[in-house]
Amino acid sequence: MTDMKATMGETAGPSQSAVPKHGGDLTALKAMPDAFAGDWLDLSTGINPLPWPVPAVAPDAWQRLPEAAAEQALLAAARQCYGCPAEAGLVALPGTQAAIQLLPRLFAPARVTVLGPTYAEHAHCWRPARHAVTETDSLPANLGGTDILIAVNPNNPDGRMLGRDLLLRWQAELAARGGWLILDEAFADVVPEASLASEADRPGLVILRSFGKFFGLAGLRLGFVLGDPVVTNALRQAAGPWAVSGPALAIGTAALADTGWQQAMRDELRARARRFDQMMRDRDIHVLGGTSLFRLAKVADAAGFAARLQQQGIHVRIFEQRPQWMRFGLPADEAEFWRRFDRVLV
Amino acid sequence: MTDMKATMGETAGPSQSAVPKHGGDLTALKAMPDAFAGDWLDLSTGINPLPWPVPAVAPDAWQRLPEAAAEQALLAAARQCYGCPAEAGLVALPGTQAAIQLLPRLFAPARVTVLGPTYAEHAHCWRPARHAVTETDSLPANLGGTDILIAVNPNNPDGRMLGRDLLLRWQAELAARGGWLILDEAFADVVPEASLASEADRPGLVILRSFGKFFGLAGLRLGFVLGDPVVTNALRQAAGPWAVSGPALAIGTAALADTGWQQAMRDELRARARRFDQMMRDRDIHVLGGTSLFRLAKVADAAGFAARLQQQGIHVRIFEQRPQWMRFGLPADEAEFWRRFDRVLV
Repeated sequence: MTDMKATMGETAGPSQSAVPKHGGDLTALKAMPDAFAGDWLDLSTGINPLPWPVPAVAPDAWQRLPEAAAEQALLAAARQCYGCPAEAGLVALPGTQAAIQLLPRLFAPARVTVLGPTYAEHAHCWRPARHAVTETDSLPANLGGTDILIAVNPNNPDGRMLGRDLLLRWQAELAARGGWLILDEAFADVVPEASLASEADRPGLVILRSFGKFFGLAGLRLGFVLGDPVVTNALRQAAGPWAVSGPALAIGTAALADTGWQQAMRDELRARARRFDQMMRDRDIHVLGGTSLFRLAKVADAAGFAARLQQQGIHVRIFEQRPQWMRFGLPADEAEFWRRFDRVLV
Repeated sequence: MTDMKATMGETAGPSQSAVPKHGGDLTALKAMPDAFAGDWLDLSTGINPLPWPVPAVAPDAWQRLPEAAAEQALLAAARQCYGCPAEAGLVALPGTQAAIQLLPRLFAPARVTVLGPTYAEHAHCWRPARHAVTETDSLPANLGGTDILIAVNPNNPDGRMLGRDLLLRWQAELAARGGWLILDEAFADVVPEASLASEADRPGLVILRSFGKFFGLAGLRLGFVLGDPVVTNALRQAAGPWAVSGPALAIGTAALADTGWQQAMRDELRARARRFDQMMRDRDIHVLGGTSLFRLAKVADAAGFAARLQQQGIHVRIFEQRPQWMRFGLPADEAEFWRRFDRVLV
C-alpha cells in the first residue's frame, strides 16, 4: 500500500464557521436567499480599488510558454522597485500565497512563532508540515524558543508596524544560530520606508512582497520572495518552470517600473484612508488602525453589523476570534459607500 | 540550526548541456553571436500554433481575487469537455507542471516506474522526493516491483499510444494493492478517444490534462488533474487558495465549452500533420511518429541539423540521449517554414 503522506490527511472540508476564511469572494453571499441584487461593494479585502491600468496583452504572452528573458525583465523591475540588493535572492511566484504554501515544506521540523493576530494562512500552512507553531499577540521578549519567526509588517488587519531596528535585531539574533525571520510585507508598498527589502542580502531573512494588492490586480496572481538565496533558490526549484503566467510577467514588469503611478497612488490612498477615518469619527466609530489599503474599525457586534451591511450590498471582513473587529477595504466609489453605510446606521 | 530539507539541496544551477532542458524559449538563441535577426519560427514545443481566440478579459478577472463561482464554472466546463464522471475528483492548477511538481510530495517513498523515453520532468521531480525511480523504455511485463506507474499517453516525443485495455488492466492491478497509475494526457485533446478521463472515477487513477497545448495558450498557465479524490483533494490543499488566475478561469471556461472550435481544430491539426509528414517524405526524411501537435523525425545528426535550422530562424527540439531525434511543432505558416527548411537541405 502506497500511503498518501500523513500531512496530506488534513484535507479538510469547507469551514463550518459562519465567518468565511478569506475575504474577496461574493459567491456565497450572492447565493443567499434575499441576497442583495445590485452591484456589490466588496470591501472584504485590502486590495486597491484603483487598479494599475492594464494595457492590451501581447498575444505571445498568452500563447507562448513564459520565457527566461521575460522573467529576467520582471525580476529586474522588481529588484529596482523594491530596492533589493543585487546580492539578495529574488524569485517570482504566482502570488505570495504560493510562497506561503511552499515555505513550510522547505524547512526541517522547527519551532515556529507567528506574531498574531494576523493573516491566518501562515499558521495554517506551517502546522500540517510537522512544525511546532506558536501564535503570540505580544512581541516576544526573547527569541530563545524560536527557530523561525514570522511577522506581517505592516500587519493585517490592525496595521501594527514593527520598527526596522527591532526587525534587524531579530534577524541578527536568529541568523546567528541558523534561524530565520520571515517577513510578509504584503502591504508595504504603501509604506516603502517600512520595508526591509533594502536589507534582503542579510542571512536568514526572507521577505514576501505581494504584487496584486497595491496594484489592484489580485486576479493576475503574482508575488515575490526576496532574501536569503538558499530559500529563494529552493522556492524556485519547488515552483518549477513557468510558474508565473506570461501576462503576469508582462504586466508586472510594466507596473513595477511605473514609479510615477506608484507615488501618486500612495498619496491618493493615504488621502482616501484619512477621509475614511474622518467619516468614521463623524459617526462615532473608532478606527483602531490599518494601512492605507484597509482600515480596522471597532464596533459592538461585528457579525450583526456585517449582516446589515450585506443587506446594502457591502461586504466587509470580520474575524471569528475578535467579535468587535471589522476591516474595511477602501471603496472605489466613496459617495456610494457612505450612502449605503448610513442606511445601516439609521 | 534550522536545516533546509535535504530534498531542497538539489537546487541545481543551469544545465551544463548544450541541449536545453525544455523547448519554447528563444532567450538563449537570440543572445548568441550571429543569431538569426528576423522572426523566429519556434517549433520546439508541441503547443498549437493556431490558438483559441482570446476575447477581451473582463476587468474583474484581473482585479479581484479569483472567486469560487468562477472556479466552479471552470471545473464544470472541464468535466463536460473531458467527459469526466461526476464521482471523480477534479482540480484546476496553474499548468500541469504544477501538478508534476506537487505529486511526488503527496506520496510516502515508493517504487516509481516511468515509461520512457518521455517528458523528463516526471522523473526529475519524483527523484528528489525520496522515491526509487526507474525509467524503462519497454512496457513492463508485470508491475510486481512498482507502486506508482507514470505514463504519458499519447507519449511525447514519439506519440506512442497505450491501449485502453492495457491501461485499465494496469490501473486495476495497481489499485488492488494500493498502488497508483498516473497518466499524463498532455496531448490527448487531439485524440480524445484515447483518453481515460471517462474512467477517472476508478480508484488509484490520476490523469493530468494540459490546457495550454491544444488551445495554444501555454502562457495562461492552466491544467487539470482528474481522478482519485484522495489525490485531487490533496493537490487542491497543497496548491492553496487562488492557485489559478482570474483570466485563466474566464478564458479556460469559455474555451473548454467551445466544442465547435475544438472539433474543427482537431481536423485542422490532423490535416496539417499529414501535410507535414508528406513534405518530409518528399525530402526522404523519416517521421517516426508523434501526435498532430508535434512530429518526431529521424535525422543523421540532430544537433548539427538543429544548428543549421537555427541559422534560418527555426528552433526545434533535440534530445541529448537520442542523437538522431528531432521533434517539430507544427508551423503556423507552413510555406515560410518549408522555404527556410529547404535552404538548410540544399
